[in-house]
Amino acid sequence: MNDNFKFEIIKTDSGTRARVGRLTTPHGVINTPIFMPVGTQATVKTLSSEDLHMVGAEIILSNTYHLYLRPGHEIVRKAGGLHPFMNWPKPILTDSGGFQVFSLAELNKVTENGVHFQSHIDGSRHFFTPELCMEIQNALGADIIMVFDECLPYPIERDYAESSLRQTLKWAERCKNASRNPKQALFGIVQGATFRDLRIQCARELIDIGFPGYAIGGLSVGETPQMMYEIIDYVVDELPEDKPRYVMGSGPPVDIFEAVERGVDMFDCVMPTRNARNASLMTSQGVVIVKNAEYASDFSPLDPECDCLTCRNYTRAYLRHLFKAGEISAMRLATLHNVHFMLTLLVQIREAILTGRYPEFKKSFLGKYQRGIHS
Amino acid sequence: MNDNFKFEIIKTDSGTRARVGRLTTPHGVINTPIFMPVGTQATVKTLSSEDLHMVGAEIILSNTYHLYLRPGHEIVRKAGGLHPFMNWPKPILTDSGGFQVFSLAELNKVTENGVHFQSHIDGSRHFFTPELCMEIQNALGADIIMVFDECLPYPIERDYAESSLRQTLKWAERCKNASRNPKQALFGIVQGATFRDLRIQCARELIDIGFPGYAIGGLSVGETPQMMYEIIDYVVDELPEDKPRYVMGSGPPVDIFEAVERGVDMFDCVMPTRNARNASLMTSQGVVIVKNAEYASDFSPLDPECDCLTCRNYTRAYLRHLFKAGEISAMRLATLHNVHFMLTLLVQIREAILTGRYPEFKKSFLGKYQRGIHS
Repeated sequence: MNDNFKFEIIKTDSGTRARVGRLTTPHGVINTPIFMPVGTQATVKTLSSEDLHMVGAEIILSNTYHLYLRPGHEIVRKAGGLHPFMNWPKPILTDSGGFQVFSLAELNKVTENGVHFQSHIDGSRHFFTPELCMEIQNALGADIIMVFDECLPYPIERDYAESSLRQTLKWAERCKNASRNPKQALFGIVQGATFRDLRIQCARELIDIGFPGYAIGGLSVGETPQMMYEIIDYVVDELPEDKPRYVMGSGPPVDIFEAVERGVDMFDCVMPTRNARNASLMTSQGVVIVKNAEYASDFSPLDPECDCLTCRNYTRAYLRHLFKAGEISAMRLATLHNVHFMLTLLVQIREAILTGRYPEFKKSFLGKYQRGIHS
Repeated sequence: MNDNFKFEIIKTDSGTRARVGRLTTPHGVINTPIFMPVGTQATVKTLSSEDLHMVGAEIILSNTYHLYLRPGHEIVRKAGGLHPFMNWPKPILTDSGGFQVFSLAELNKVTENGVHFQSHIDGSRHFFTPELCMEIQNALGADIIMVFDECLPYPIERDYAESSLRQTLKWAERCKNASRNPKQALFGIVQGATFRDLRIQCARELIDIGFPGYAIGGLSVGETPQMMYEIIDYVVDELPEDKPRYVMGSGPPVDIFEAVERGVDMFDCVMPTRNARNASLMTSQGVVIVKNAEYASDFSPLDPECDCLTCRNYTRAYLRHLFKAGEISAMRLATLHNVHFMLTLLVQIREAILTGRYPEFKKSFLGKYQRGIHS
């Protein structure tokens, strides 16, 4: 912990563990619970930083693995870090690259010291250690950085999960002890697959090492929603009340609600942006696949309850036309909407917690949203 | 001519035929000489209408052929026309589709009545007549519409050019006499390939039919710049002083200057937008291929003399990264810049004519711009 980083809980819901907080970072304050749009390659796909300001983003996530490979962290360092490089003055969180090294890179080989892998771009060979991961994230200069960990797939053998966890905990300690920038808050990541005792062991050992925030990793990898909620339940039981909690990679509104009421403060997911580029749009009435023929002459806004640039200015018929015609502007207008939708959902969740209407808001929102989900 | 459409010449340059004018249309006033960004499919590729306002677009061009095929002009008619469909309240010009029917569509067969062609999208068969072309453009609702013509390739046999010209002139008359919306100004198009007598004959016959504006078509199709300038010279000699003149499809700054000083008022070209998507950017110091390795650590703005969103907020290194990483946001930021650059060039040309500094401005601009052209 350091002076640049502070977490205050403003209000806790009376009926659930949901809480509203304020996270102070060197680049500003974040209101929690918060959704972080994913800017993998130092850009939230299709958007500019002006667009991110417009839709109300408070913090974005960027990816260490991708930026290490391209443009290279030394170029970002020369630029003065990610903030000036991408002209985003507000908070940034970088992941550790662990997830991508194991899932996206090829021919990875894990040793005690780190992971050998080949770039998914050009096959070039690289070796990530916890220390290198800290050095890269230092060059990127995010406000919140993550420990280097192994994110396990689902399902996984108990034996592998145990040995992986030993490695992940050793790496977490090495990250903590590595040469670091004291302005960057380093979060631990609770792994342990779907094994309750391993998850609890991991949480406890991370707390012994001591971090200013804790993530729950290895979720949304194929387990059932019920398993995910259960894992969040018993992991949060172990985590300190006064530190932010971050469920990595979770984005569907129902999962956000389930995690928020279990005491989770931070979320990220590529779903709103990736789905937008495929014409799958989140609205107050549920998901709208705006490419569908039924919208060809629908001159109403995508979501009549939304006040984003797209809904204020364009119709479903126009968006459908742009998508059918393969126009790039379709992807940007759709992304603007979906990110605005997610950020507004979190604003509403915070407001509902603050005013003691969380259960009613959840019921009302999901009642309308899930009615519209066709698939 | 009608009350909705008025062309006034504000100032004519003393040393050249360059002139500054004001063109009044149902959706507002256009200052000429003007560059019209091309919005082929009811969108200027990668941009939203808010972006077009931001870069200062006064009028855009859209394509009858493309919109007829997709989404279909009846859908645009139901939307209330292109203006509400794409949320662009300022003037729009639609071309006639002639150019695309002959160049983009397949298996076209010309008869006296019109052109049979197959869609480049799905091979479906269609038949364009001058009357249908007017009906489609009526549904699209642009402020300025164009006669249906045959745009000849270069080089072309004299015999073919002669018979094509007879057809084009008959079609021009049929367009004029077709059922039309009196609020839409219909421009004639001077064809005649590179044959001086045919071009002059065409201009004179079109003037006999009578149009509120005249385009010079069939240029920028492979002829040399000198041939193009010469054609503009002798065609403009024939055209009335008090009507706007439009050279179709011409965009390189040097061609704009050469045409402006020959008395041309309107321009359109896909070059600034298409080149932008390929990382070829126009700057006050010449063309910058921002993908090039030399810009990897260049943290200066793309064009230090430019005040567009891209140049104010992003560096060459960041743009290069986005292009190398295949990010869509690169194309939008580049397009914003190139369109802003072209529109600003025309603002500067108008200002130079108004203040009697046109020759100096041309020399100073091209001196810097062409020095930077490597290819």
